Amino acid sequence: MAKIAIMGFGTVGSGVLEVCRRNAAAIARRAGEPVEVKYILDVRDFSDSPDAALFVKDLDIILADPEVKAVVETIGGTRFAYPYVRRCLESGRSVCTSNKEMVATYGAELLALAREHGAAFLFEASVGGGTPIITPMHQCLAANHISRIEGIVNGTTNFMLTKMKREGMSFDEALRLAQKLGYAETKDPGDDVDGRDACRKIAILASLACGHHVYPDNIPTRGIRELTSLDVKAAESLECVIKLIAWYREEANGGLSAGVEPMLVPDTNQLAGVDDVFNAILVKGDMLGDVVFYGKGAGKLPTASAVVADVIDALKEGAAVHDSLFWQPAEKLDHMLEDKKPCSWCVRVRGGAYGFSLPMEPVRSENGQTVCRVHNATRAQIDALAVEMKARGCELLLALKQMPA
Amino acid sequence: MAKIAIMGFGTVGSGVLEVCRRNAAAIARRAGEPVEVKYILDVRDFSDSPDAALFVKDLDIILADPEVKAVVETIGGTRFAYPYVRRCLESGRSVCTSNKEMVATYGAELLALAREHGAAFLFEASVGGGTPIITPMHQCLAANHISRIEGIVNGTTNFMLTKMKREGMSFDEALRLAQKLGYAETKDPGDDVDGRDACRKIAILASLACGHHVYPDNIPTRGIRELTSLDVKAAESLECVIKLIAWYREEANGGLSAGVEPMLVPDTNQLAGVDDVFNAILVKGDMLGDVVFYGKGAGKLPTASAVVADVIDALKEGAAVHDSLFWQPAEKLDHMLEDKKPCSWCVRVRGGAYGFSLPMEPVRSENGQTVCRVHNATRAQIDALAVEMKARGCELLLALKQMPA
Repeated sequence: MAKIAIMGFGTVGSGVLEVCRRNAAAIARRAGEPVEVKYILDVRDFSDSPDAALFVKDLDIILADPEVKAVVETIGGTRFAYPYVRRCLESGRSVCTSNKEMVATYGAELLALAREHGAAFLFEASVGGGTPIITPMHQCLAANHISRIEGIVNGTTNFMLTKMKREGMSFDEALRLAQKLGYAETKDPGDDVDGRDACRKIAILASLACGHHVYPDNIPTRGIRELTSLDVKAAESLECVIKLIAWYREEANGGLSAGVEPMLVPDTNQLAGVDDVFNAILVKGDMLGDVVFYGKGAGKLPTASAVVADVIDALKEGAAVHDSLFWQPAEKLDHMLEDKKPCSWCVRVRGGAYGFSLPMEPVRSENGQTVCRVHNATRAQIDALAVEMKARGCELLLALKQMPA
Repeated sequence: MAKIAIMGFGTVGSGVLEVCRRNAAAIARRAGEPVEVKYILDVRDFSDSPDAALFVKDLDIILADPEVKAVVETIGGTRFAYPYVRRCLESGRSVCTSNKEMVATYGAELLALAREHGAAFLFEASVGGGTPIITPMHQCLAANHISRIEGIVNGTTNFMLTKMKREGMSFDEALRLAQKLGYAETKDPGDDVDGRDACRKIAILASLACGHHVYPDNIPTRGIRELTSLDVKAAESLECVIKLIAWYREEANGGLSAGVEPMLVPDTNQLAGVDDVFNAILVKGDMLGDVVFYGKGAGKLPTASAVVADVIDALKEGAAVHDSLFWQPAEKLDHMLEDKKPCSWCVRVRGGAYGFSLPMEPVRSENGQTVCRVHNATRAQIDALAVEMKARGCELLLALKQMPA
C-alpha cells in the first residue's frame, strides 16, 4: 500500500481524491500496489466533510509520517506551494503538481532538488490539463531533437476566440460569457486574456526542449484584449482563423526564440480546427516530424487524472525519470527572446495605408479602420512602420503574424 | 555502455541504427548510459556495408553475448520474428518491435513471457509509426478507464482517400499513385487496402484498453476497394469525408465491439481534417474525456525513433513497465465483435430506393446508381435491406456508417 498526501483541496486537489477512489483497482494494478490518500493539507475548515479525518493544517505531520511516499501539490501560485514542495523533496518525497506558475518559475531548481534527494518531481498536468504532452515529449520523443513547438495551450482564450468567430461576439461579450461559465476569473481574467498562463506553459515546454531553464519573463507575450470583430472577419476572408499561439523555435544556428501572441492560422493548418476549450500542441522532432497532442486543456477530473498518472510514475520510477525529464538552471536573460524571422502579417491601421516603407494590401475596412496584409516583414520592420505611420498622422493599431499553412 | 542488437535490417531496422548514431548524445543522457548497436542479424549479404562487421546470421551469437541487454525486432511478419522474439525474451533480453502482426497475434503470450523472464516487451512503433500512442495510453492515461478508440491508423489508404477526394481520382488511380510513391505494396496491396493492417493496429489498442487479447480475426474488417467517386461526392454533399476508421467501443453493459471500415466523417469531426499519410487516434478516458494523437503513421526515421525510445525505456524500466503495459491471454471468439448499435448510413443502390422497409433519402445519383441516407439503422437491418432489395431486382452495392460530429 502506497500512502500519499494532497496539499491544497481546491478543484484539482479534490479531483485527485475522486480519481484515486473511482479508479482504485486500475491504479493499484498499474502502480504495483494500492494507492491511498492519507492526508490532505488545507488551511480551510473541512470538519463537515466525510473525509474530515484526513485533513491536517501542518505540513510537519505529513513529513513526519514515513508511510507517505509521494505528495500532490495543488495549492497553486508560488507563495506557499514553492516552500512546501521544496520541503517535501528535501525529505525524499516525490512531488506531483499541476502548478504551471511554480514549474515555470522554479522548475530547474526543483528538478535538481528532486534528483539530489532521490525523488521524482513530475508536472504532466501543468501543460494541457489532462492531455499528455510532457511525458510523450521526454519519453516517447527521447530519440528526437525537438526544434519547434506551437500550441493552443489556454482553453479560456480559445473558447472566447471561438465565440468571437462563430457568433460574432466582441471581446467583452466573449469574456463575460467565459466568466459566467467559470472558464475565466471574475476578478482578474488577466492571466488568461493577457497570455500569462500560455506564457508559463510554453516556458515549461521550451525548457524541456532546449535543456535549460527558459523564464516566462523572457518570452514576449501578447494577449487577445485588442482583437476586434474586424480582425476576426478579415482573418476569415483570408481563409484563416485567429488563435492565441504559444510557440518555441530553435533556429538552424542554434538561436532560440519564443512567444505568445494571437496569430492568423490558415484553415488548412491542424491548429485551425481546435475550438472551444480544447488545447492542441504541435511538436516537431528531427526524426519524427510533426506530432500533435489534442484534448481538453483543463477541468477537474482530466487534470486530476494526469496528476494521478504522475503519482503512479513517481511511485514506480522515482528519480530515474529525471534522466529524461530534466533541464539545467540558467540565468534570466536581460533581453527578450524576440522573433527575428520575416513572415506575413495582418495589420489594422487608421488613416491610410499607402506610401509607407512596407507595401500594404487592404483586406477589409470598417469604421475608418482597415486591415491590410504585409508580406515578408520582421517584427522590427512592423514596429518601424508603426513609428512611420504615427509621424504621418496615421496609426498602426494591431499587427498579427500569419502562421504557415 | 548498453549494447543492443537489431534483428532485420530493412527500412525500420536500418533507421534504428541511424537514429542511434545521429542522436547518440541525447539517447545516452536519457538512457543513463550510451547505447551502442553491437550486432545486426540479417540473412542477406551486407559484406559491402561500412557496418559489415556488425552483421551476423545466427541468433545464437547474440544470445551468447551477455553484454547485449535489449534486442530490436524489425524483421516483420511472424514466421521468423515470433520464434526469435520468444528466444530473446526467454534469455531475459528485452525486445522492442515495430511488428504489428506479431503483437496483434501473440501479444498476450509475449507480454507474459517478458514478465516471467524479467524483461520488457515494447511495441510503441507498432501503431501510429512514430506517433506516441501506446505509452500515453498505458502510462499517461493510467488513471482512466478507456471506453472508446477511433482512429485513422493506415497512412496508405488515407493518402489514397485524400487523392480520391481532392483530385477526383478513382480507387485504381489512387492505388497506382500510392504504389508509385512506395506507400503501397506493388505485388499485393491487400494488407493496406483491405484493412488488415488497420485491423491489427486496432486489435493491439483494443487489447490494451480492455485488458485481454482481442484477435484481429474477430474484428469485422472492410477495406476501401469498393469506394467509387460517387461515394466520395455524395459524402462531400453531406459535409462529410470518407475515412477508413478503426474503432473499438465498450458499451455501458460491458459488451465490446470493434471494426475497421470506411465511414462518413463529418467535416466538423477532429478526424476529418487528417489527410495524406497522417494518422490520428482518438482515445476516450472516463476521467479525461477525448484526447487525440496525430502524426505521420509510418516512415523510416519516425518509426525508428519510436523503437529507440522503447529501447531507452526497456533499459531503464525493464519488466516493471508491464504493470501497466499488459493484457491477459484470451481464447479466440467464435463470433465477430459485430456492431449492434443503430446509426446513420449512406447506402449506394441500383434499381430504386422507394418502398423498402427502411426509408431511404436520395443524396446523389450517377450512372444508374444512387447514394441514399438511411437513419437510425443497425448493420443487421442494412443486411436485411440488401436481401429485400435483391428479391425485388434491385441491389444494395455499398453501405457506409456515418460517425457522429
